Amino acid sequence: MNNIKYYLDKVGAIFDAEQFIAEPRELYAPIEYTLRLGGKRIRPTMLLMANALFGGDEQQVRNAALGIETFHNFTLLHDDLMDRSPLRRGQPTVYTKWDENTAILSGDTMFALAWRYFLRQSTPKLQVILQCFNETAIEVCEGQQKDMNFERMGLANVSIDNYMDMIRQKTAVLLAGALKIGALYAGAPADEVERLYAFGIHLGLAFQMQDDLLDGYGDTAVFGKKTGQDIRDNKISFLPLTALKYANEEQRKELLALFAAKDNMDEEEKVRRVLALYQAMNLKNAIEKAIADEFETARKELDGIHADEPRKTPLRELMETLNGRKK
Amino acid sequence: MNNIKYYLDKVGAIFDAEQFIAEPRELYAPIEYTLRLGGKRIRPTMLLMANALFGGDEQQVRNAALGIETFHNFTLLHDDLMDRSPLRRGQPTVYTKWDENTAILSGDTMFALAWRYFLRQSTPKLQVILQCFNETAIEVCEGQQKDMNFERMGLANVSIDNYMDMIRQKTAVLLAGALKIGALYAGAPADEVERLYAFGIHLGLAFQMQDDLLDGYGDTAVFGKKTGQDIRDNKISFLPLTALKYANEEQRKELLALFAAKDNMDEEEKVRRVLALYQAMNLKNAIEKAIADEFETARKELDGIHADEPRKTPLRELMETLNGRKK
Repeated sequence: MNNIKYYLDKVGAIFDAEQFIAEPRELYAPIEYTLRLGGKRIRPTMLLMANALFGGDEQQVRNAALGIETFHNFTLLHDDLMDRSPLRRGQPTVYTKWDENTAILSGDTMFALAWRYFLRQSTPKLQVILQCFNETAIEVCEGQQKDMNFERMGLANVSIDNYMDMIRQKTAVLLAGALKIGALYAGAPADEVERLYAFGIHLGLAFQMQDDLLDGYGDTAVFGKKTGQDIRDNKISFLPLTALKYANEEQRKELLALFAAKDNMDEEEKVRRVLALYQAMNLKNAIEKAIADEFETARKELDGIHADEPRKTPLRELMETLNGRKK
Repeated sequence: MNNIKYYLDKVGAIFDAEQFIAEPRELYAPIEYTLRLGGKRIRPTMLLMANALFGGDEQQVRNAALGIETFHNFTLLHDDLMDRSPLRRGQPTVYTKWDENTAILSGDTMFALAWRYFLRQSTPKLQVILQCFNETAIEVCEGQQKDMNFERMGLANVSIDNYMDMIRQKTAVLLAGALKIGALYAGAPADEVERLYAFGIHLGLAFQMQDDLLDGYGDTAVFGKKTGQDIRDNKISFLPLTALKYANEEQRKELLALFAAKDNMDEEEKVRRVLALYQAMNLKNAIEKAIADEFETARKELDGIHADEPRKTPLRELMETLNGRKK
């Protein structure tokens, strides 16, 4: 049976074989730049694994793998512009390396290029597969809007339920959608597809919650990002929202004040004080428990899928890798 | 036989019956605003006409009509942001009424909503139809990039061929694509589809050249835009490019200098001097001749299509309306 490395290498080879540059170069150079930056490429990897889980033909999902990753990179490109993030994968983002208009238009074109990949492949299930892709895309946009809304609402007015709904749309549905599309190409039965989708949702939620945790507690040298960036940015994440659940009145007041602080406070002092509050509440343990629960729910969904156990191995490996990730 | 008014009313009714608002409202309110502004809605009208030309079922193209117009409005929304245009159809553009991020994300969502409409309709031709739509979308993006490139290149370095290639992609392929999609739904033979597409391309070129002409010579009260806005913006259009063809050395120098002028020149003085140059070259006649030629080529393509003559009437009416348009 193939292992996780097989699929990661496969996805790497698919991207290496692809030509992204075209005319006009001003439009396509940023697209090639973005798609060549690499990243973990988890979504196409999962799509291939899901296809193999139900005995699908690997050649048939090559284009879908390209499509889902191209779409994901389009969302990153526009998100980085909207969030004014200067770096992505340690490199300058498109809007900083080029300009805003280039980021807008190259992003739009990448969305269409994702469609071009999906439309290359004939399959009797085309309409259902494309609907799955497109409804996922719409949910990702809705999730991004909700994330932007949180900033305006402020920490005190966002609930953990609001937050879980947001990360479900912004992050989890695309992982789940990649699995679903892979399974649909393989002709998997509807109820197995839905179980795999549920696995992807819980995996995605756990993945994002872990991302939030690493922001506060990750090893900068390993994680690749500066610890506490979310705190500096007053970014509402699973950490402060969970902290509010455990805070006493005094701690609550302090946390809300720190997350409302603008440029009038020393950033490192703010990070130090927020982390001290978290420490006092033993927040790390509570977060790790919540993440473990989410992974456990995902594992149960995977257990429940009717497929040869050895075929599930790569997805189990992937889950354990994500579970243990330090970056 | 149905006339042009029938199709315009039909498209109006299709849009009136549609619900565009959804949650989160911050995302969908600008989408509803944009789609309710109306405009000429030529593309869905042409799609319906093309479908009827080959005896198609009007109900089958309802969603495609919504899809093509939603896509068109997405491109306007992002173009207005990139071009920093404050007004569209006499109303504030989305990025001015809301903000830049809203314009980016609502635009992205509109692109996906266009796909949702197209994906609602089952048809054995789905893959071909969606490929036509998507390749059209990519060409529109390429055309917009070329248009932005022109600004950097400067008037002296853009040829009329460059310009025709740009407006073919930015404007004409979407009109032609709308016709092609309508015809494909009706099951029209491939060579007739291509003839109809060619008709759409020449109609689209004529349409854009006329837009350029109206900028310089339109009646502000009728056209709805201030005369000479392209001149104020140093916008490279068919007018200055054609003028360069007729200019003597002295006129050429003056025109290039005027189109390179930045804020150091009184805008109305600039408009006056450019229009005086055009006048001296009798430019209006030359442009009108070029537009008439383009309409004539379009007419011949339409003549060559094998379909009942009465069924061509709405498209002929539309062409004559566009030909005689003052706005």
